[in-house]
Amino acid sequence: MAAEKKASKMTVQQLKTPKGTRDWVGADMLLRDHIFNSILDVFKRHGGVSLDTPVFELKDVLSGKYGEDSKLIYDLADQGGELCALRYDLTVPFARWLGMSNTQSIKRYQIAKVYRRDQPAVTRGRMREFYQCDFDIAGVYDSMIPDAEILRITSEIFDVLKMDISIAINHRQILDGMFAVAGVPPEKVRTISSAVDKLDKAPWAEVKKEMVEGKGLSEEVADRIGEYVKHNGDLPTIIKFLKEDQALMANSDIKAGVEDMELLSSYLNAFRVGTKVVFDLALARGLDYYTGIIYEVKTNLAPEVDKKKTKGNDELSQVGSIAAGGRYDNLVGMYGKRQIPCVGISFGVDRIYTIMKARQETEGKARVREVDVYVMAFGGSGFTGLLLERMQIVSKLWEAGIRAEFQAKVKPKLPQQFKAAEDVPLGVILGEDELKNGEVRLKALNTGAAEEEKDRGQLVKLDDLVAEIKKLL
Amino acid sequence: MAAEKKASKMTVQQLKTPKGTRDWVGADMLLRDHIFNSILDVFKRHGGVSLDTPVFELKDVLSGKYGEDSKLIYDLADQGGELCALRYDLTVPFARWLGMSNTQSIKRYQIAKVYRRDQPAVTRGRMREFYQCDFDIAGVYDSMIPDAEILRITSEIFDVLKMDISIAINHRQILDGMFAVAGVPPEKVRTISSAVDKLDKAPWAEVKKEMVEGKGLSEEVADRIGEYVKHNGDLPTIIKFLKEDQALMANSDIKAGVEDMELLSSYLNAFRVGTKVVFDLALARGLDYYTGIIYEVKTNLAPEVDKKKTKGNDELSQVGSIAAGGRYDNLVGMYGKRQIPCVGISFGVDRIYTIMKARQETEGKARVREVDVYVMAFGGSGFTGLLLERMQIVSKLWEAGIRAEFQAKVKPKLPQQFKAAEDVPLGVILGEDELKNGEVRLKALNTGAAEEEKDRGQLVKLDDLVAEIKKLL
Repeated sequence: MAAEKKASKMTVQQLKTPKGTRDWVGADMLLRDHIFNSILDVFKRHGGVSLDTPVFELKDVLSGKYGEDSKLIYDLADQGGELCALRYDLTVPFARWLGMSNTQSIKRYQIAKVYRRDQPAVTRGRMREFYQCDFDIAGVYDSMIPDAEILRITSEIFDVLKMDISIAINHRQILDGMFAVAGVPPEKVRTISSAVDKLDKAPWAEVKKEMVEGKGLSEEVADRIGEYVKHNGDLPTIIKFLKEDQALMANSDIKAGVEDMELLSSYLNAFRVGTKVVFDLALARGLDYYTGIIYEVKTNLAPEVDKKKTKGNDELSQVGSIAAGGRYDNLVGMYGKRQIPCVGISFGVDRIYTIMKARQETEGKARVREVDVYVMAFGGSGFTGLLLERMQIVSKLWEAGIRAEFQAKVKPKLPQQFKAAEDVPLGVILGEDELKNGEVRLKALNTGAAEEEKDRGQLVKLDDLVAEIKKLL
Repeated sequence: MAAEKKASKMTVQQLKTPKGTRDWVGADMLLRDHIFNSILDVFKRHGGVSLDTPVFELKDVLSGKYGEDSKLIYDLADQGGELCALRYDLTVPFARWLGMSNTQSIKRYQIAKVYRRDQPAVTRGRMREFYQCDFDIAGVYDSMIPDAEILRITSEIFDVLKMDISIAINHRQILDGMFAVAGVPPEKVRTISSAVDKLDKAPWAEVKKEMVEGKGLSEEVADRIGEYVKHNGDLPTIIKFLKEDQALMANSDIKAGVEDMELLSSYLNAFRVGTKVVFDLALARGLDYYTGIIYEVKTNLAPEVDKKKTKGNDELSQVGSIAAGGRYDNLVGMYGKRQIPCVGISFGVDRIYTIMKARQETEGKARVREVDVYVMAFGGSGFTGLLLERMQIVSKLWEAGIRAEFQAKVKPKLPQQFKAAEDVPLGVILGEDELKNGEVRLKALNTGAAEEEKDRGQLVKLDDLVAEIKKLL
């Protein structure tokens, strides 16, 4: 509230949000908040600690962390003083914070906006300002226990959101060992790993072509990789497959990875999430810094969303992975003297939002606010409007924690009051005669306009009103 | 999660947040969230609609809105494309949004960070990145009804936060009329109003000196102002005082303002907040754009905070106004074709935080996370650690929505488990003998270390565990 009367008047055509950003309001915000609150609930259930960092960091903190993508960082103007830039993700601020603090171990979560000067694709939900939602467990623990808890948290969150998911999982040491055994030269491991990462969207023939023609791998080596990466299934099955292959098990990375996966398998069963997890030898994940297990969550769109909403809407059917992460034991060491092992996951809340919004649209009109009761008045000739009485009664409801509104008019018309109460489930209706007896009428709203006029609801004593409303809500 | 292995290693001394910003974590975040959630609850209770705007706006949207303070705006660097700047408050983005939308009326709220390149005073809670928390009612309604609801909302919020407050209130038309009747030349009204605004912190003699010597007002006119502005009291008393002064009532602005205040008085009584409101003829508020009532909320620090925490801590006793606002009917018109009258309030959440933090510190140690149950194991020689059993039981608790943790070790030591459960109220203790009978021990924690070792809690059947825990929480 600090603008001035003499301020320059803007023309309407200039009124927009910056490219790649948007306002959120009403029903959209309620849905987004519902998603955030569901996720936060689960984070807290697991002892998560909330971290909030500034929206901008010293430029030096971000420099050299994102490789080529650094060009997408938003810089602040040099107005004297420190050089700063908007945060690009939540992981670097978390690592910076860990580097500054004395914390040895933490389960930290953060839901916040991040910024990338990318080409926006608004309909597909790719924006320049968007939310990330991260949960990470940092600290030295016994092997695979925090890893299993991250997957348990993931499973709980999608249960709460009523989304059917599966979690693909792999292990960096198994993947790298497999490349070594297949005969990939060490300097080509990362680039071949990136090629395998595309198996998600491209057929094997295409990926093989990239390996052989694009990256100079021999056809024989590529075929050996092809044999391995086609295997996926539940953890015991793939673990068995790996253990029976003596060539693979002779590799120390693979041996260590398989031991991890055996432990993980028993922990996931104890946590009752084993059935949702698929061990997929083709899962590679792009980022370099993973050192242990990696995972990606996928959803099958609910049939009603699929049928009704995706015709002509390619974006929805391309939603792809809705959460992903892994173990990264060496990142924090870049920010200080200490190395702190971490495992974490990032939820793609924009993608989750897109799916849930489509589901909501198949279920009818969404509310823009969550009011439960509308207090209204009516009367014949000589109607005073009963404003003070409406104010007194609505105050009582507020004091009882009930969400309630009334029309801010001295003499409101009944149809206007019904219209304002369009998305409100209950009406309290004041009439002068009823009030003389210490009574009002309580009625369910939105039963149809004709019905509305006829049925004036049940008579309720003022003293019982709060209790009666709470019974109905 | 997008940093790279090869990233440059930073030296420890560079590890800081930018000037005037800070990280929030653990107990501080829980307290801040408690404040935000209390406020949001009340906003929603009144049918508030949530609005979220981008953290940066087009530079043109902010230009010319903040007068001299424009130099405090953070600009984004010109990296090609639109010129943008970080938002300076939440009112201009709200007015920009109203200008873009077709909304005729809305109760909108927004809690979000704003940015000012001011000289930070960290101990006093003045930061470059800080939260604002605004509720505004926009739209054409009958006179003073939304104004009264804003004050009712304010009162409810501080009730929920258990803070004792009073609301000083005045009316711009009465203030301006009073200056006219006293003989202030029209061109000096705003500057004299600014002088009166200082009566809060400075004695009358000093303010008079500023008016006469600094601003060239005649001593006679200044004295007449001095006579008026010393009046304050409950609404009926001050209304009566004004109505009895025929010179004042002959001024049309004052007459209109007094009519507003009479309506407001009856509405505040119906809303049961009349007793918290003080009509203060000396209240001026700095900003130019107010057109009707203006108000400021003050708190008396609770005695325990005052005594224990303010010695040597001037900042706390200077906390001053913790919420303020008023009616501004002409601001939205600057952003489009439509004029939409508005009335609103902004809560100083940082100041509220400072007060509640001091109060919390007098009440003992704050929790950093809200875990309710710690699942632990103990045993004699040959102790296996019961890890899978702990995992199964903690999963059951999570499924029941209970906040629970366990130690991520295969064979945890009992003292370490008790230490990790330091701020957790309940412990579930697994022993091999008890488990054979389908039982565990449930005990209240933090009863003292010696006690902890002796009392191993009550035996509970596994099937009854969730119910027993819910009973105790």
